[in-house]
Amino acid sequence: MKNIAILTSGGDSPGMNAAVRAAAKVAMNKGLKVFGIKRGYQGMLNDEIFEMSSRDVSGIIDRGGTVLLTARCPEFKQPEVRAKAAKILKKHDIQGLVVIGGDGSFHGADLIYKEHGIKAIGIPGTIDNDIAGTDYTIGFDTALNTVLDAISKIRDTATSHERTYLIEVMGRHAGDLALYSCLAGGGDALLIPEEGFKVHEVADQINKRREIGKLHDIVVVAEGVGSASDIASQLKGKVKSEMRVTVLGHIQRGGTPSALDRILATKMGAFAVEKLIEGKSGIMIGMESNKLVTYPISYAWEHKRELNEKDFELALTLAL
Amino acid sequence: MKNIAILTSGGDSPGMNAAVRAAAKVAMNKGLKVFGIKRGYQGMLNDEIFEMSSRDVSGIIDRGGTVLLTARCPEFKQPEVRAKAAKILKKHDIQGLVVIGGDGSFHGADLIYKEHGIKAIGIPGTIDNDIAGTDYTIGFDTALNTVLDAISKIRDTATSHERTYLIEVMGRHAGDLALYSCLAGGGDALLIPEEGFKVHEVADQINKRREIGKLHDIVVVAEGVGSASDIASQLKGKVKSEMRVTVLGHIQRGGTPSALDRILATKMGAFAVEKLIEGKSGIMIGMESNKLVTYPISYAWEHKRELNEKDFELALTLAL
Amino acid sequence: MKNIAILTSGGDSPGMNAAVRAAAKVAMNKGLKVFGIKRGYQGMLNDEIFEMSSRDVSGIIDRGGTVLLTARCPEFKQPEVRAKAAKILKKHDIQGLVVIGGDGSFHGADLIYKEHGIKAIGIPGTIDNDIAGTDYTIGFDTALNTVLDAISKIRDTATSHERTYLIEVMGRHAGDLALYSCLAGGGDALLIPEEGFKVHEVADQINKRREIGKLHDIVVVAEGVGSASDIASQLKGKVKSEMRVTVLGHIQRGGTPSALDRILATKMGAFAVEKLIEGKSGIMIGMESNKLVTYPISYAWEHKRELNEKDFELALTLAL
Amino acid sequence: MKNIAILTSGGDSPGMNAAVRAAAKVAMNKGLKVFGIKRGYQGMLNDEIFEMSSRDVSGIIDRGGTVLLTARCPEFKQPEVRAKAAKILKKHDIQGLVVIGGDGSFHGADLIYKEHGIKAIGIPGTIDNDIAGTDYTIGFDTALNTVLDAISKIRDTATSHERTYLIEVMGRHAGDLALYSCLAGGGDALLIPEEGFKVHEVADQINKRREIGKLHDIVVVAEGVGSASDIASQLKGKVKSEMRVTVLGHIQRGGTPSALDRILATKMGAFAVEKLIEGKSGIMIGMESNKLVTYPISYAWEHKRELNEKDFELALTLAL
Repeated sequence: MKNIAILTSGGDSPGMNAAVRAAAKVAMNKGLKVFGIKRGYQGMLNDEIFEMSSRDVSGIIDRGGTVLLTARCPEFKQPEVRAKAAKILKKHDIQGLVVIGGDGSFHGADLIYKEHGIKAIGIPGTIDNDIAGTDYTIGFDTALNTVLDAISKIRDTATSHERTYLIEVMGRHAGDLALYSCLAGGGDALLIPEEGFKVHEVADQINKRREIGKLHDIVVVAEGVGSASDIASQLKGKVKSEMRVTVLGHIQRGGTPSALDRILATKMGAFAVEKLIEGKSGIMIGMESNKLVTYPISYAWEHKRELNEKDFELALTLAL
Repeated sequence: MKNIAILTSGGDSPGMNAAVRAAAKVAMNKGLKVFGIKRGYQGMLNDEIFEMSSRDVSGIIDRGGTVLLTARCPEFKQPEVRAKAAKILKKHDIQGLVVIGGDGSFHGADLIYKEHGIKAIGIPGTIDNDIAGTDYTIGFDTALNTVLDAISKIRDTATSHERTYLIEVMGRHAGDLALYSCLAGGGDALLIPEEGFKVHEVADQINKRREIGKLHDIVVVAEGVGSASDIASQLKGKVKSEMRVTVLGHIQRGGTPSALDRILATKMGAFAVEKLIEGKSGIMIGMESNKLVTYPISYAWEHKRELNEKDFELALTLAL
Repeated sequence: MKNIAILTSGGDSPGMNAAVRAAAKVAMNKGLKVFGIKRGYQGMLNDEIFEMSSRDVSGIIDRGGTVLLTARCPEFKQPEVRAKAAKILKKHDIQGLVVIGGDGSFHGADLIYKEHGIKAIGIPGTIDNDIAGTDYTIGFDTALNTVLDAISKIRDTATSHERTYLIEVMGRHAGDLALYSCLAGGGDALLIPEEGFKVHEVADQINKRREIGKLHDIVVVAEGVGSASDIASQLKGKVKSEMRVTVLGHIQRGGTPSALDRILATKMGAFAVEKLIEGKSGIMIGMESNKLVTYPISYAWEHKRELNEKDFELALTLAL
Repeated sequence: MKNIAILTSGGDSPGMNAAVRAAAKVAMNKGLKVFGIKRGYQGMLNDEIFEMSSRDVSGIIDRGGTVLLTARCPEFKQPEVRAKAAKILKKHDIQGLVVIGGDGSFHGADLIYKEHGIKAIGIPGTIDNDIAGTDYTIGFDTALNTVLDAISKIRDTATSHERTYLIEVMGRHAGDLALYSCLAGGGDALLIPEEGFKVHEVADQINKRREIGKLHDIVVVAEGVGSASDIASQLKGKVKSEMRVTVLGHIQRGGTPSALDRILATKMGAFAVEKLIEGKSGIMIGMESNKLVTYPISYAWEHKRELNEKDFELALTLAL
């Protein structure tokens, strides 16, 4: 392993830069040449590949987003397109690839290795925490803290006006962001796709809170169960309190990464390069039980991350 | 003046608590008895009136929302309802009233004074900065900083994905929040109700940025010009870049008040009580040219706050 | 188990309130009566014990410090003093005790159980992360994020003036807060008690950075190695750059708890009550490998938490 | 006026970059060539002068510190050194100079204009708010918000432990930062150089608070009255409460600039360039009564900024 390249792909998440930095610095420290690929697989196809110096990763550890930029690249599903990409990588004599992104991004890494022998390792970077093989994905903790800050701001108005707020949070098909922001934010009701919900039960829960003297509610709605607006419409007439809906949107994707995300990303980035140097390929990095682990990269899409049932139960208990 | 009462009314805004605290502490310091009225005019009608102690205002200066709660009270427009309210105030021997809220809230204060002789002073509290007679309303600076934080987070994703983001900010019919968040946030285009806009010109501006090598855009849209979603639909096909819309929503209304809002609120709260003690009534407090001023309370709705044209021009110049 | 009591003891840390809330709500939910003890063991002696309602723990999840207050109580080391305390607890028919604090606080819990049969469970709450039997203590993640925010602010001045900053962080005898803030903050040198350091090597490292074109340095100094001021004096004359010292001090102890600390505290608080109900006593709660665990409470002071050597090595590698 | 140059000098402050950006963009917009001078007057002497493009000021509005770097340059007091500097400026055909910094930095600007005819305008940038001719200096509002955040964190521990905290804040010889952080932070005592204090009175005030049931105190100490440590020593034995001292230090100098600082800096930067184009020189820019004003640059050191006595009285009243 002499030359490696790093790319970020799919949706950006806070901490990606810390992973890029750690991977690049550790590789340089081991005497490797490091290339950055801009705009993910799209940039790979366009040969947007440059040799990185330590200056390129200086001062980026605390910046959200990705300095390598990111893009979607649907044509990478075609074998002939991947062949072209592999040719470009080989032109630069790149033998190893670090891909930071979601499970979709891991597919490309897997195939470029299997088809063209370029070693590739995936690092899970997404705010959704929806990848099997790791307890946390890079960006999840930052997004969680952003949601908590938003809940705290909205609670000021919820209490002042004695309203019911439905707050829609991200997470794609996964409920983790909603579950843990409810647990940590003191939410009063929680709707996530893994568990389903019945509108009349939610209404009952809100109405019951009025009976015991609680004068406002924070209902955390995972986007995976549908639009918070629609749910509010369904609740209308069933709850007595005044309702408002807030869709937190893209503020959840950015921001200075939290301590945990920077540490997670730094350790994963360094570990990925160590594994590449050891000759490993076709694997993804995970953090399980506080330990760095590896799985075959296909693990990411062949398994579904399970919701922590006990944490869900606890959130319900505390919501009462 | 022996007994005064304080209420918050209309939409809550960060800093209202600092105003309540300052008014209460200064009044107590002058030997007055201070009452808190819960839930604005609605609570006044329901006699939700309690004597405040210094303990009630302890530790509230840094909390968003309003500890006195707030509510809308449409029936207060009826003279007989106001008569009932005045009776309740007189029952408590309340001779002076401090009303913290928007121009709608000032109406009630004006009438209760004119019709029933209870002295009343208005303090402008709203994040919209849309009240004539003051350079700043309580809550505006905090909301502005919240919007800047959101812009900064969204820019991470905008730059990483090279997208055009339309960010819808509050402000009702006023463009101040949008204007100053664009100016301070380095926004690339600005749509506010006072100035209007042409869709094709916005599109031109965005396209022109691509030509000079700028790869992302932050377009700040005041809610007063309509929905950012609608505008995005109109722009579709006219701009080449990928677009996204974010409606910041109710996070703009809450949060720990900023230094400026706490100072503004503290000074206004103290000043209002001084004026009541001097025997003044039917006035609103303002901060103009860094000086505390008073206007007849009707000034708030008889005059329209003017947009600062020079600041608008500067925002346009810097957006290029 | 019918009646339990909760107290916080030793130095306060962010997240203690979330633990109090979860323990109280879960216990109430199970039909137990819950008492709060004010001012730790000192308050226990003074019978500052009150029955808690759900209102007492409402709205506290996002507040730093401890609503139960805390105090040191050296006389609790005397058996006759503990006998008096046990008598007071028995007067209230308190059969179970949840003690949130550091290892010093756990001693009292252990003895009151062994000597007087009152069941007691310890929850580790301290920003220092210096307790064996748990990967994280409540408050550590918040303190870490506070330190990162401070480093980020100081770096603005360090880069602008091209200076060397020595930043002294807390941690008592442990280096975790320094290690992980260096790792996550991109620190350029790290001095922690577990590893020691040689002044001339630190100087060499700083001077070497100048040679490779780095124009500022962030040196993270754990308080456990001594005062940053003293170290700066020793470095004087050995490094060419202008030096400044900042002692972060007590800002590291407070603040709204982070997501991780709230979740950790919530789970530990709930788990402690479950264990009490199961009849367990004389144990401490830990979070190891992302799982809730228990240890005999003496584990906290009989074992020393080990520094993660691999993380230390990584911090050194990335500091270069 | 065809070519202008911009430099930052003296201590850095948040918002300087926003001023650099606005000055540069407005000048470019008017067709001027813009130079950046690195490291203040020191860099001027070393000809560290480069032509700026819009790319150099892109993405800097929300960054603390100064991208132009800053340095002290005592030899600039010598006329022959200034002559050398002027020669270098003339070599680049620089006819106008924008100097962002404190009153010390303004001296150089004044002399280079008087002695060598290069037009120069000063913009007040310092967190200390100690410059006559302007209500606010760039960086003051950000520093104030940083101090408030620190007070809020420290109050968590102060209330939990029922202690008296002495918090030392910056401000050089000026008490503004201390005064307004006390006013906005709900401080319980205030020591500033403009007003002096008597140790026994401070002790009385703290002891009196205990009598009325207040169990903790935040004492805000301006660095201009001396070290908070020394004052704590003098208070020892006179107050019954446990005391702690925190020196906030250099975190007050950095950080993302607040909305107000960015707006202030942006307007001042743009205005300075307009004035240069109008042919003005030897002036400083101020913001008084919310309006941009100019003064002869010597105004900055010939006049002393007055403390607002009324605000001081209000802080005392509310501290009780």
